[in-house]
Amino acid sequence: MGERIPNWLLQRSHISPNKSALIFEDQVWTFREMQEIVQDLQEKLMTCLKKQDRRVAILMKNHPKMVWLIHALQQLEIETVFLNHRLTPAELGFQLRDSQVELLFYDVTLAEIANELYAENPQLRIYSTTQYEEFPNQQLKSRAEYDLAAICSIMYTSGTTGKPKGVQQTYGNHWWSAIGSSLNLGLQSNDSWLCAVPLFHISGLSILMRSVIYGMPVYLMEQFDEEKANTLLQSGQVTIMSVVTAMLSRMLETLGTNTYHTHFRCMLLGGGPAPLPLLERCVEKEIPVFQSYGMTETSSQIATLSPEDAFKKLGSAGKALFPAQIRIIDQNGQEAKAEEPGEIQLKGPNITSGYLARPEANQTSFEQGWFKTGDIGYLDEEGFLYVLDRRSDLIISGGENIYPAEIEEVLIGHDAVREAGVTGGKDEIWGQVPYAFVVMRKPISEAELIQFCRTHLAAYKVPKKIMKVETLPRNASNKLLRRKLLEFLEEEKHS
Amino acid sequence: MGERIPNWLLQRSHISPNKSALIFEDQVWTFREMQEIVQDLQEKLMTCLKKQDRRVAILMKNHPKMVWLIHALQQLEIETVFLNHRLTPAELGFQLRDSQVELLFYDVTLAEIANELYAENPQLRIYSTTQYEEFPNQQLKSRAEYDLAAICSIMYTSGTTGKPKGVQQTYGNHWWSAIGSSLNLGLQSNDSWLCAVPLFHISGLSILMRSVIYGMPVYLMEQFDEEKANTLLQSGQVTIMSVVTAMLSRMLETLGTNTYHTHFRCMLLGGGPAPLPLLERCVEKEIPVFQSYGMTETSSQIATLSPEDAFKKLGSAGKALFPAQIRIIDQNGQEAKAEEPGEIQLKGPNITSGYLARPEANQTSFEQGWFKTGDIGYLDEEGFLYVLDRRSDLIISGGENIYPAEIEEVLIGHDAVREAGVTGGKDEIWGQVPYAFVVMRKPISEAELIQFCRTHLAAYKVPKKIMKVETLPRNASNKLLRRKLLEFLEEEKHS
Repeated sequence: MGERIPNWLLQRSHISPNKSALIFEDQVWTFREMQEIVQDLQEKLMTCLKKQDRRVAILMKNHPKMVWLIHALQQLEIETVFLNHRLTPAELGFQLRDSQVELLFYDVTLAEIANELYAENPQLRIYSTTQYEEFPNQQLKSRAEYDLAAICSIMYTSGTTGKPKGVQQTYGNHWWSAIGSSLNLGLQSNDSWLCAVPLFHISGLSILMRSVIYGMPVYLMEQFDEEKANTLLQSGQVTIMSVVTAMLSRMLETLGTNTYHTHFRCMLLGGGPAPLPLLERCVEKEIPVFQSYGMTETSSQIATLSPEDAFKKLGSAGKALFPAQIRIIDQNGQEAKAEEPGEIQLKGPNITSGYLARPEANQTSFEQGWFKTGDIGYLDEEGFLYVLDRRSDLIISGGENIYPAEIEEVLIGHDAVREAGVTGGKDEIWGQVPYAFVVMRKPISEAELIQFCRTHLAAYKVPKKIMKVETLPRNASNKLLRRKLLEFLEEEKHS
Repeated sequence: MGERIPNWLLQRSHISPNKSALIFEDQVWTFREMQEIVQDLQEKLMTCLKKQDRRVAILMKNHPKMVWLIHALQQLEIETVFLNHRLTPAELGFQLRDSQVELLFYDVTLAEIANELYAENPQLRIYSTTQYEEFPNQQLKSRAEYDLAAICSIMYTSGTTGKPKGVQQTYGNHWWSAIGSSLNLGLQSNDSWLCAVPLFHISGLSILMRSVIYGMPVYLMEQFDEEKANTLLQSGQVTIMSVVTAMLSRMLETLGTNTYHTHFRCMLLGGGPAPLPLLERCVEKEIPVFQSYGMTETSSQIATLSPEDAFKKLGSAGKALFPAQIRIIDQNGQEAKAEEPGEIQLKGPNITSGYLARPEANQTSFEQGWFKTGDIGYLDEEGFLYVLDRRSDLIISGGENIYPAEIEEVLIGHDAVREAGVTGGKDEIWGQVPYAFVVMRKPISEAELIQFCRTHLAAYKVPKKIMKVETLPRNASNKLLRRKLLEFLEEEKHS
């Protein structure tokens, strides 16, 4: 058992009952109103909860109903598995079985996927928002405290190879992430955070957690819309927003000659450093961009670069947040000198307690309290972090992580494909998109292969192009050298 | 072993090397400069440290040298016993023996006391600032992390009865206190805190801890001076200041028709609620007073009242800070209803892990994670805390409880009274009766004042005698020492 602190939602509703908690379209809820809705909901959910439901999955789009559900499950001490509705039923089915979830709550707009999941996974009980809202209330006293060591949320990510793994985030991970962020960005009484990223990702969920811990309103968007986001930032109602490069780029294009309100004080940019031209446009418009580095395993950003350092430290992700530490380990397992690249390793109370039911991955990913990211980078003399390469070839496309291994596995699953290699190519809109290279067993058209991918992969993971090659670049141990695939891409362009 | 976080001083110097850390008279030190001075100092101190010196005492006045020493001892993992130089050598000698300290560092201006202590306590080794600064350096690598469960500081406080007890404050207590305060007051990039309270009290030490945790400059004063404090608050350099009523009152008198800079955003008031006339003058001058409740055992304030609630909740100490909880226990050991007085009990990660070497006091003071303050108060319907009195000062007269604060408030409400203090004197008939001591603003007869009390208080609460005095006994933080009032009573009898 870890440190215990007061039940966040109750404490916030007690301390700041009349402060705005959530704004969605034209509706506003205070912390007390939110707490009352959640109290009612948790009493309804009791009706369908069985004793063995230690873990529950939710399949929803950004919406107040998703916010209420997230809090209600926390009140009930249930671990929440966050499903990404852009994944295929096959991908989601794996996550449900892997996490041994038997209860799924879903958004009515996602009924089709939910029903498919139900059909394929006989252990599952599924309830839509409209269903569970009709349940009778079972009286329930809220728990007084949260145990910071208890698991709060689980989000799946893929590693270098193989199947996705469930990252377990404790209440303490969320708490320390929120505190680390506030010690870096400060905390003002007029702060409010625009959430136009998915709540099923840590980028979105962490905003909700901060909202309750700080007593800060969240402006929630069902999905990112650059015009609406710009309007909010121009109005002065929003002081902080989380974005990835593709979002920021679209916002700037739409903004035209306008500027944001002086109240807007932080554009928190995740998913890799900003390209120079984008940074320059932001400076022109006096948009304070905080570049950051983080992942699901760190429960949101763990390093950030302040706008003042953006040009002095071009391409850097900044310094570690106050409660966290960063070190670089070279190929010999020694701590690297300044400027010398190696594996980025992280330590801090915001880092996951481990992957769900993956003893091997946990053994290889952690060492004496340090988390081995698999990312390559270096620290400069002043301790600024530079990320050279994301975790073995990770492709980041519009803020979504794409793991080449997952796409390769699908391609190899096709009769006609002997070998496959996938890598990310630059894309003006999405930052990166996946490109595939295949060695054929028998002839088949690119269109047919792409169609095959569509049935097995979320749309954003489907390769933009599949190129036939004679051999794939491999090292002496026959390990695929994904970065060399880019050379094929170059050749392709020049031919 | 508890949660571990990076060595505060190193991490802050790493993250904010060029930010101002300390301002004293006309000198400014950045966090890096401070860290370098501390590094040098800790290497010097190694020369006189023996293996058994787990605990060290310091006898100093507010000064940068005291700041360096506090940090150096933290770097060395030494528990620091903070001595109050206004105590008698006999009182200090008790604390040294009780804490089994064999090493004392002192300020040259306090050499006389230090020498007396040395003469009386043969186990002691004493070194003045000028002595230890001349020690040779022993090379020493700083520790990378602090263990939040480790003891950082020890401060002696008297309870209701008997000898003073050493309150042990862990690194975690200081950390959570700083975090709880920032979640309440916010954290702005231009923040700076004026420390005109003693560093050997938790009110002062907690400012130093916040400085490093937040990356915030501290303006340090050797001793409180209302004119200098006013000048700083008018300049806009200081945004927050910790005070007790007597300090605030003197500052307002000196301020005259002037006002503070708009940057000044928080007058954090400890040591009991502010009298109404003082609050009214602060409103006139737009001084944002945050009344608070806390003690050495809570490592600084644990409840605060925001300026917006000051009049709506007159006399309240506000609500618990976010990581903390407050409950009221009635005479039957049950949780009291709203408005019903009882013992104030507190819970939270900022609360002491216990008194040094006092198993009995620890057993009686803690119950299932709750700290029993001995103070009497109640929570209103909205959860605002009202402290009726510190139990130690409770007067029991003919079976009725009398809270001195209540009588003092009435007396201060009279035009002619500047300050008032009330305590219980023995009485053959009633057991105890209240005696009042007043500092006058203009002449008035005792009979008239007693008559005034009769119109405001139940008969048994009316002071039996009201004595005029020049000053009231206060401690170094300017807090009224009601028990010392009894000495006036004795003098009165013998004269």
